[in-house]
Amino acid sequence: MALDIDLHVVWAKVKARLESQNDGCLSPSSLKSVLDEIQTEPRCKSPQLVDLHTFRDAVDVNYQRMAITGEELSGVPLEDLKTASGHLIEALHLRSKYMERIGNQFPSTTRNFLTGHYPNNLPKHRVKNTETTVQTSFNPPDPPKDHWGKNDPLPKYEKYYKLRRNRGVIDICNEDGTIDEQFKNISVTKEEFLNDTEKLTAMIVDGPLKSFCFRRLSYLENKFQLHVLLNELRELHEQKGVSHRDFYNIRKVDTHIHAASSMNQKHLLRFIKKKIKTEADTVVLENNGTKVTMKEVFKKMGIDAYDLSVDMLDVHADRNTFHRFDKFNTKYNPVGESTLREIFIKTDNYVGGKYFADLLKEVLSDLEDSKYQHAEPRLSIYGRSKSEWDSLAKWALTHDVWSPNARWLIQIPRLYDVYRLKNMIKNFDDMLDNLFTPLFEVTNDPSSHPELHLFLQQVSGIDSVDDESKHEFVHFDRSTPCPPEFSDVENPPYNYYLFYMYANICALNAFRRARGLNTFALRPHCGEAGHVSHLLTGYLTSESIAHGILLRKVPVLQYLYYLTQIGIAMSPLSNNSLFISYQRNPLPEYLQKGLNVSLSTDDPLQFHYTKEALMEEYSIAAQVWKLSSCDMCELARNSVIQSGFEDKVKIHWLGPNYREEGVLGNDIHRTNVPDIRVSFRHEALVDELCNLFRVQNTLKH
Amino acid sequence: MALDIDLHVVWAKVKARLESQNDGCLSPSSLKSVLDEIQTEPRCKSPQLVDLHTFRDAVDVNYQRMAITGEELSGVPLEDLKTASGHLIEALHLRSKYMERIGNQFPSTTRNFLTGHYPNNLPKHRVKNTETTVQTSFNPPDPPKDHWGKNDPLPKYEKYYKLRRNRGVIDICNEDGTIDEQFKNISVTKEEFLNDTEKLTAMIVDGPLKSFCFRRLSYLENKFQLHVLLNELRELHEQKGVSHRDFYNIRKVDTHIHAASSMNQKHLLRFIKKKIKTEADTVVLENNGTKVTMKEVFKKMGIDAYDLSVDMLDVHADRNTFHRFDKFNTKYNPVGESTLREIFIKTDNYVGGKYFADLLKEVLSDLEDSKYQHAEPRLSIYGRSKSEWDSLAKWALTHDVWSPNARWLIQIPRLYDVYRLKNMIKNFDDMLDNLFTPLFEVTNDPSSHPELHLFLQQVSGIDSVDDESKHEFVHFDRSTPCPPEFSDVENPPYNYYLFYMYANICALNAFRRARGLNTFALRPHCGEAGHVSHLLTGYLTSESIAHGILLRKVPVLQYLYYLTQIGIAMSPLSNNSLFISYQRNPLPEYLQKGLNVSLSTDDPLQFHYTKEALMEEYSIAAQVWKLSSCDMCELARNSVIQSGFEDKVKIHWLGPNYREEGVLGNDIHRTNVPDIRVSFRHEALVDELCNLFRVQNTLKH
Repeated sequence: MALDIDLHVVWAKVKARLESQNDGCLSPSSLKSVLDEIQTEPRCKSPQLVDLHTFRDAVDVNYQRMAITGEELSGVPLEDLKTASGHLIEALHLRSKYMERIGNQFPSTTRNFLTGHYPNNLPKHRVKNTETTVQTSFNPPDPPKDHWGKNDPLPKYEKYYKLRRNRGVIDICNEDGTIDEQFKNISVTKEEFLNDTEKLTAMIVDGPLKSFCFRRLSYLENKFQLHVLLNELRELHEQKGVSHRDFYNIRKVDTHIHAASSMNQKHLLRFIKKKIKTEADTVVLENNGTKVTMKEVFKKMGIDAYDLSVDMLDVHADRNTFHRFDKFNTKYNPVGESTLREIFIKTDNYVGGKYFADLLKEVLSDLEDSKYQHAEPRLSIYGRSKSEWDSLAKWALTHDVWSPNARWLIQIPRLYDVYRLKNMIKNFDDMLDNLFTPLFEVTNDPSSHPELHLFLQQVSGIDSVDDESKHEFVHFDRSTPCPPEFSDVENPPYNYYLFYMYANICALNAFRRARGLNTFALRPHCGEAGHVSHLLTGYLTSESIAHGILLRKVPVLQYLYYLTQIGIAMSPLSNNSLFISYQRNPLPEYLQKGLNVSLSTDDPLQFHYTKEALMEEYSIAAQVWKLSSCDMCELARNSVIQSGFEDKVKIHWLGPNYREEGVLGNDIHRTNVPDIRVSFRHEALVDELCNLFRVQNTLKH
Repeated sequence: MALDIDLHVVWAKVKARLESQNDGCLSPSSLKSVLDEIQTEPRCKSPQLVDLHTFRDAVDVNYQRMAITGEELSGVPLEDLKTASGHLIEALHLRSKYMERIGNQFPSTTRNFLTGHYPNNLPKHRVKNTETTVQTSFNPPDPPKDHWGKNDPLPKYEKYYKLRRNRGVIDICNEDGTIDEQFKNISVTKEEFLNDTEKLTAMIVDGPLKSFCFRRLSYLENKFQLHVLLNELRELHEQKGVSHRDFYNIRKVDTHIHAASSMNQKHLLRFIKKKIKTEADTVVLENNGTKVTMKEVFKKMGIDAYDLSVDMLDVHADRNTFHRFDKFNTKYNPVGESTLREIFIKTDNYVGGKYFADLLKEVLSDLEDSKYQHAEPRLSIYGRSKSEWDSLAKWALTHDVWSPNARWLIQIPRLYDVYRLKNMIKNFDDMLDNLFTPLFEVTNDPSSHPELHLFLQQVSGIDSVDDESKHEFVHFDRSTPCPPEFSDVENPPYNYYLFYMYANICALNAFRRARGLNTFALRPHCGEAGHVSHLLTGYLTSESIAHGILLRKVPVLQYLYYLTQIGIAMSPLSNNSLFISYQRNPLPEYLQKGLNVSLSTDDPLQFHYTKEALMEEYSIAAQVWKLSSCDMCELARNSVIQSGFEDKVKIHWLGPNYREEGVLGNDIHRTNVPDIRVSFRHEALVDELCNLFRVQNTLKH
């Protein structure tokens, strides 16, 4: 008799027979009868006896899955697994706490594990609601004509608070000077932050934990490659089956772009040439009391409109900017003249930012023409004076710099040392005061800064920018002075900046929530260069980050970014000119592992050649890394999810259920991402989390 | 006394003293006086005494040059150098002969060496004429309204010839049946071709010659890198100094693009959707006598206009086309339906190619809008019947498919085996007859095919296309039958096709020259895949080639392509989808060595994403390979030089002296290529040629 029977099954039967006999031995005839019994059983049952450790979502999506059988040890000793999962879960709890305080996104799947709801209550049966999707219009309703809401009366509140600066943050106090109950202990304290940072620092250097995370990430990468080999054609078939929708008409958001360099070099050139001709006699500068006209500016430089070329403009990054962020920064000055930057790409200059507004509106109008392309341009606030916010708001409203295809982010350069040296501020708290106090004031009483109140409704987040590779002379530890005492001429380190921005936004968001106003996400540049600790700070404080290319060197953080699905807006062309060549960029690797990555342009002025910078970015990625149409649609969907567009807009772009976990949140008719891909991603994430939490739950019992 | 004196100098002096004394010996005091003499000489003179083997062009361009001193042996044993240069010069003579016969380009510098004019008469003094360049208008005059010349009377000639097919080629005979004197022995014979092929084959496998060429190519590459390190900023400075001109407004020609896939996928989709709506009831097909309307075609496929998406169209190359030319070819069929290809991208279908003409005219109109972008689209002639040329010409003239930004090339697919199997032709001569006889007829008497006569004036060359990687079952040797006897069902090999095309075009061009008509260049696809012998045949027969990526495996041919500056139209994005990944593409290496390469798109339908396919191609190359602005402008200039636009047009685009050697041929005001770069290229080429020819000249003496 050929034994084509699973030996596990035989052993289980024999054991059962032995136990029922109670004498502990089995006669040959008895064994024969067991085998006969198995022979006559319907064969299809046997796979059920294999213990599958792989999660399968209870929605019916048909594709080839990989199941792991055997002991579940993730390929490391049990002890290591226990310690590792303990650490990782602690880290997840930390981020969960920080995101709750600031009111930024945290993925529901991971949260369900942290609250203990999963893995035991993983849904047994889920039905995808496919009906609504076909009927709903996919375009958001047209915005009102008065898109700034200038005609609406400013809100008035029953109660106004006193604002009091306290060690770098603002306390929202009652009339009697006590902190209002609902705003107490909103943020984390400096000590708490430093403790948490220490914990995480210990984790990212922990040898066994590093190995564990590296192993899991490699596993995820391999699993994805297997998935693609098995299901590529099915995914493609699913995409083809969707009428009308393709990569060109799905929504894409440029999640990281600086307003000052959002046009390409040819566009800026054309614009400047036009203005030289049409506004020759406009006064554009005041130099020591003398008024200078446009004509005179260019005469002084010895350039006339016809002469000017892209080469002269010299704003494009080239071979000489690689690892030279300083050189790159000077490229922002057309023709190497800061005067032209001042005239054309500043919001607060002699002409009231008129030219920059015109230029930006051309960029926005191109976006609107493309219909499906959107952007989140960064505008600068420096923190040199309190009036900056008001003048920025005035600029935006006066020139009506607005588009349904854009939401603004505010970027804050980390330039304390420069202002301190020039005695524009006396200590770090002055800078924070300039940056945040107007925001609290306008939240407290919109009539105090009426234009800012309206402008802020179009702002979705705050970004922290500068060259991360600069050496940090100051360390942030318990001995570092609080902002009011920080009067050093050296710049405070990255994490000091980020912590105080986080703390202020925490309080601000709580305040604005209480007022029924929109809140802000902290979305800094992080992990582009410099020390990996930036990424650690980003993990604690930020809803999403820009760049993150250094995650490739920190497996523990990379795995945590995966588990918490932190958005990473990557700009491989920018990196290619500055920090890492295109071929070595980790984007394709991150994408395979399932990190929440999107594509963005950073600075079309410096990097791109065609009129469609975002499409160019996608095209190069697709070509160099051989991305499939499915990969590209996934990147586009990620970009919408990461973006700061309002929920009601995202519902139109992604589907009404887009917040649901896994397949239920996907609407292929809008995103062109196959359910198969979304299901795979969801199941992989749940698998990883189950893997961690089951061990811990077993330990508890 | 420290001897910081060049010993060469000492030796020269001592020798002179010895000779003047006539007694052959030198006393110590005499030696001392020689040394003293040297000590007192002005020291700066000594560098002049060093023997420089490096050519310096007699035009004054100021930059840092590298000079080689010491024995001139190119780093190989003298014997090897002698043999190698002998072989290479022979190979140069071969190509020179073939190009002279067909009347295609051969670079004047190399020709001057071959005729013996150089190196002895290398110009001592050349002056660049810079005056004219500033005044001339850079735009060619507007073409006449009647751009086809329909209103001009057809030319009449005094003498008409008899055309007689003779072993695959056409003899142009007098009334009495003898070959006319001026057309005798125009082409090379099959035997001559096979002899020459054998000679070259022996060379490319010759070990020492391979080493020699590899060494010279490496030397060229290193020399270029050194040049860039030393002169990058000067080059940039030169570019910045040119008013108005930059990469965006220099002329670029897409030197290799197929008309059938010259639009991008989104464009084709939009076009089809529009036609489904506006031409629903137009009859577009006839199926076994039944007329089928547009509506019915799509109804049968179960698709309506709104449903159709880029994914369904499925014309884009993806991961699955890599090394699968067969799969790639089927991508030409939208929605996998050859019917749609038939309706929309054929010139001779039920609707008379109306849709294809409309589509192409949209592409051409986009080119005209861009002003500086030009293309050489390929239209197909198959050789299945003699009427193909007439119907193609009729199509072009009827629908006025014409643009000042385009010149046509005719592509001939190598599909003899397919037609033979279907009994459309009986032997290879039938195919050649169909392909070439109409061209001879119309040259003999324009009134025999009046439309073809007009159309041909817009055709600049002939291309040979198909999958080069197909196995070749037949060999071309002395036993291979002549075309009339070639009735095998197997396809003849690549070099058989190319030789007979070459031979026919030789005769045709001679005939057309005699008639005062425009001639054609042979510009086949070559070296994309398959056997390297294709590149050898290309070297002998073709003015320029498309692809050439296999040259990286054949140093001898690569060096010969360099010395003869054969144009190579490369399409790295196409290669990336089919044969070699972007990062490994040899284009940047070829460019550094100084081969005459240009960038082209091949099939925007299959490869590109944005609306500006050629700019996308340049952009990706610039980003991935970190090309400088100067490199890109050089590529663009090469593309114009390689293109088939008429001389009078090129004069406007490149400058009136563009045919001059080296710097004299460059006009930075039009090309934006710095004189420094052009000078470097010219001096490097002359150096290489000097190196070869000097050895041979020394041997002669």
